[in-house]
Amino acid sequence: MSGRVLIYGGKGALGSVCVTFFKQKGFWVGSIDLQPSDEADVSIVVTELTEWEKQDAEIQARTSEALSGDKVDAIICVAGGWAGGNAANRVFIKNSAMMCKQSIWTSCISASLAAHHLKEGGLLTLTGAVPALEGTAGMIGYGMAKAAVHQLTKSLAADNGGLPSGAKVATILPVTLDTPMNRKWMSDADMTTWTPLEFVAELFHGWMQDPTKLTSGSLVKLLTTGGQTVTEIA
Amino acid sequence: MSGRVLIYGGKGALGSVCVTFFKQKGFWVGSIDLQPSDEADVSIVVTELTEWEKQDAEIQARTSEALSGDKVDAIICVAGGWAGGNAANRVFIKNSAMMCKQSIWTSCISASLAAHHLKEGGLLTLTGAVPALEGTAGMIGYGMAKAAVHQLTKSLAADNGGLPSGAKVATILPVTLDTPMNRKWMSDADMTTWTPLEFVAELFHGWMQDPTKLTSGSLVKLLTTGGQTVTEIA
Repeated sequence: MSGRVLIYGGKGALGSVCVTFFKQKGFWVGSIDLQPSDEADVSIVVTELTEWEKQDAEIQARTSEALSGDKVDAIICVAGGWAGGNAANRVFIKNSAMMCKQSIWTSCISASLAAHHLKEGGLLTLTGAVPALEGTAGMIGYGMAKAAVHQLTKSLAADNGGLPSGAKVATILPVTLDTPMNRKWMSDADMTTWTPLEFVAELFHGWMQDPTKLTSGSLVKLLTTGGQTVTEIA
Repeated sequence: MSGRVLIYGGKGALGSVCVTFFKQKGFWVGSIDLQPSDEADVSIVVTELTEWEKQDAEIQARTSEALSGDKVDAIICVAGGWAGGNAANRVFIKNSAMMCKQSIWTSCISASLAAHHLKEGGLLTLTGAVPALEGTAGMIGYGMAKAAVHQLTKSLAADNGGLPSGAKVATILPVTLDTPMNRKWMSDADMTTWTPLEFVAELFHGWMQDPTKLTSGSLVKLLTTGGQTVTEIA
């Protein structure tokens, strides 16, 4: 076995590609999501959806059970979602609440999992967004939640952030990922600027293989043009 | 009457000083808080504490009732709180949830109130924190929630943010405010670096008197040394 990886959002577009990728590389893979993953070695299915503390307690308990004392090499949080709307929108608070759940809740629970189950020198990745580096008037809740994840990254990377000794944290900042949903809803867009999901899975694996490639606390922009993706530190 | 002001957090240390200040200046003052304010013209007492959408619905309904079609000159959100802890803390998620409620919920509800009840050219103020401009390892939930408010400020200030035409938004970033609680719990600290609450109330009033003093979207640091406070744009 190459090692152990937990993938939060293992049934999402990016998450399921990561599950497949790490299974192919010989890893034990645990998936955390609302639905079970057929490919993962263990699926932790989240049923507590209304209270953050209860959701955390459920996931912590099921993860401890699944790992029974083993530590993991990486925790990859690729859970998330998107909703639009500005402050005058009828569903502004509803959408902001959904964005907080999908990005802030999952990122903080991942950080807490990392504090307790990640190996020393292991890797925690979170998911931000390039637009949230500035204002995001047309999608206020989304940008706000992603900005919170960006700052969380800096806190976790600091000396007393609570991660195991030598562990690193990095947050990927996509612009647009090449997902089936994006292909469906933005079929007229220029897809040569969309980041392939396999690129992201390989990026994570590269950081695990050679941690010197990564400075902890980095916000890593994924910039794709003409089908080619490069990373750039924000 | 000089005008109308809504103060979210009107029973807090800073909020109650703002209520007194604006009453003295001849304003109609509405207070939104968990407790009624004796000084305010109207108190909106928040009873929905567990669900963000329900809390918003309660406050929107009570505010519409209190204003019966009148618009306000300013909405001042000085609600907030503090909790420490890193990702390994036993109460990390509990404290993060509390910080989101106290800072993100109140700021977004204030933004929504502004979209519907603020005059054209009016003022919305939110409350951030200087430390959240960087990582905050010892108080992760607090810094994350404040960073979200900082980014929210930028979204609201943009063209399509949802605020009324010509309205401005600014977020104050205190370091330490000179509150009774801080005097009680940090009695040995150098209080000459703490920002007096009256300074903040006067700052808000100054922006209302002369909006040209303020660029919308500003994150305004409050820096106090030797008892003297200056503002600096982050």
